[in-house]
Amino acid sequence: SVGEGVTSVQPGDHVIPLYIPQCNECKFCKSPKTNLCGKIRATQGKGVMPDGTSRFKCKGKTLLHFMGCSTFSQYTVVTEISVTKVNPAAPLDKVCLLGCGISTGYGAALNTAKVEPGSTCAIWGLGAVGLAVAMGCKEAGAKRIIGVDINPDKFELGKKFGLTEGVNPKDYNKPIQEVLVEMTDGGLDYTFECIGNVACMRAALESCHKGWGVSTIIGVAAAGQEISTRPFQLVTGRVWKGTAFGGWKSRESVPKLVDSYMNKKLLVDEFVSHNLNLDQINEAFDLMHAGKSVRTVVKL
Amino acid sequence: SVGEGVTSVQPGDHVIPLYIPQCNECKFCKSPKTNLCGKIRATQGKGVMPDGTSRFKCKGKTLLHFMGCSTFSQYTVVTEISVTKVNPAAPLDKVCLLGCGISTGYGAALNTAKVEPGSTCAIWGLGAVGLAVAMGCKEAGAKRIIGVDINPDKFELGKKFGLTEGVNPKDYNKPIQEVLVEMTDGGLDYTFECIGNVACMRAALESCHKGWGVSTIIGVAAAGQEISTRPFQLVTGRVWKGTAFGGWKSRESVPKLVDSYMNKKLLVDEFVSHNLNLDQINEAFDLMHAGKSVRTVVKL
Repeated sequence: SVGEGVTSVQPGDHVIPLYIPQCNECKFCKSPKTNLCGKIRATQGKGVMPDGTSRFKCKGKTLLHFMGCSTFSQYTVVTEISVTKVNPAAPLDKVCLLGCGISTGYGAALNTAKVEPGSTCAIWGLGAVGLAVAMGCKEAGAKRIIGVDINPDKFELGKKFGLTEGVNPKDYNKPIQEVLVEMTDGGLDYTFECIGNVACMRAALESCHKGWGVSTIIGVAAAGQEISTRPFQLVTGRVWKGTAFGGWKSRESVPKLVDSYMNKKLLVDEFVSHNLNLDQINEAFDLMHAGKSVRTVVKL
Repeated sequence: SVGEGVTSVQPGDHVIPLYIPQCNECKFCKSPKTNLCGKIRATQGKGVMPDGTSRFKCKGKTLLHFMGCSTFSQYTVVTEISVTKVNPAAPLDKVCLLGCGISTGYGAALNTAKVEPGSTCAIWGLGAVGLAVAMGCKEAGAKRIIGVDINPDKFELGKKFGLTEGVNPKDYNKPIQEVLVEMTDGGLDYTFECIGNVACMRAALESCHKGWGVSTIIGVAAAGQEISTRPFQLVTGRVWKGTAFGGWKSRESVPKLVDSYMNKKLLVDEFVSHNLNLDQINEAFDLMHAGKSVRTVVKL
């Protein structure tokens, strides 16, 4: 159902919830440089709707909303700018993944780093986000896509998404940045951190080629942790950047990503390693923490 | 005089020595993305000519070359790719400054940060490099150019180069990044660090606007010092980069910068605050350390 004044969606539409909305009115939405809509940021951060209220109750107690979506639930309430209508023929138990990880990694390569044809890339962490980065690098025409992971089981899987080789830092007695700089005759054109580990963020930057290498942070670090490096790394031409939701302006882009999937340009089914029911959700978290799943779709 | 095989310059040419050469052959010169020619990097770093020898002796003892130029001297020997021929009508006691600081700051704004018309900029450190950044920001059409310096005497001087206002961090009881974010409704589009102070490098990054702010490091930090920040700063759209010699490919660009000066598009005379003779060179260093000079030209 839709609330009063809602015009862009109606009952029966198939929608994907968006943790970064798109209002098309704020200065962020009006800039072509960013997707970080600021319209409902303050209230979303507090776990409430823009009017300051929560729409969830449990046993008489108010519950907060989660990231503007609250999708571990059979019913939810979101703002109009926090959903996007998608092709009704698309299977929702697959394209739901375009609401976060796949879009994030794919867009990091295409929108944030702007990977160029013939380039060399390395990706730290081959979970769903890292695999989606590989898919984006491949789409951009990269000639070498190196996965960096301490779980070598991921390397074979990664080939499906564009990985050309894998490197396990545990196989070496020296810093992985030295290994990669040697492997690539001076360093990589593009690197991506998809873990949230500040030491890996540094390694990813320092693995970049002098003069032009671009390192993109995607992973979310624990609170209070900081990245660091010698400034000489930047003065000699490396660029350090980051991305949220792969730079996609959400409402207008997610329907296009769904269409890309329907046109077989984008892999999605391949990211679903498990399907579980809502009452098994904790098992889904366990699989993720153990590195055994890529993505588990929870049936509500 | 020129050595055997030298074809691009001849006796009598007016030249400017280049601490970053341009060979047009190495992978750096062939890339449009960088000016960091690698051809003689190893030997230049060791203070010798590409054949491994030094051409300086004093009282029978070998002296090393300095940064491929050795210009605190009446005579020097440099490689062919380490000089560029310039307009013979240009006064050498002025355009000598285009071999380093002015070009570095001006190019940082135009080539590295690529400042856009109407943007807001802030510059840490109003020495010659910082003032040249201001000149570049003005040339690019920036609407607000804020100087950040603990020596407020620089603010009036800076207006000649494009500064619209000055901020002294010592006037505030809170971090300068907070002050600037408030002053600029969310942060700056472009910031520049021209000091070599890692705390200022962090402040410059964190003063950038969420979503699109670009911070460029120009200053050279003391050995071993590191920059740091929370990765969230980058994930939310700020970009951290750096520059050497303002991104100019040296041999082809410096003659054009000299011509810009001759055509009155580029200020150079205004950077010369003092003229001293070679035997007063230590006084020139003292003036610089005391913040009393912008640039002292040493007459050889």
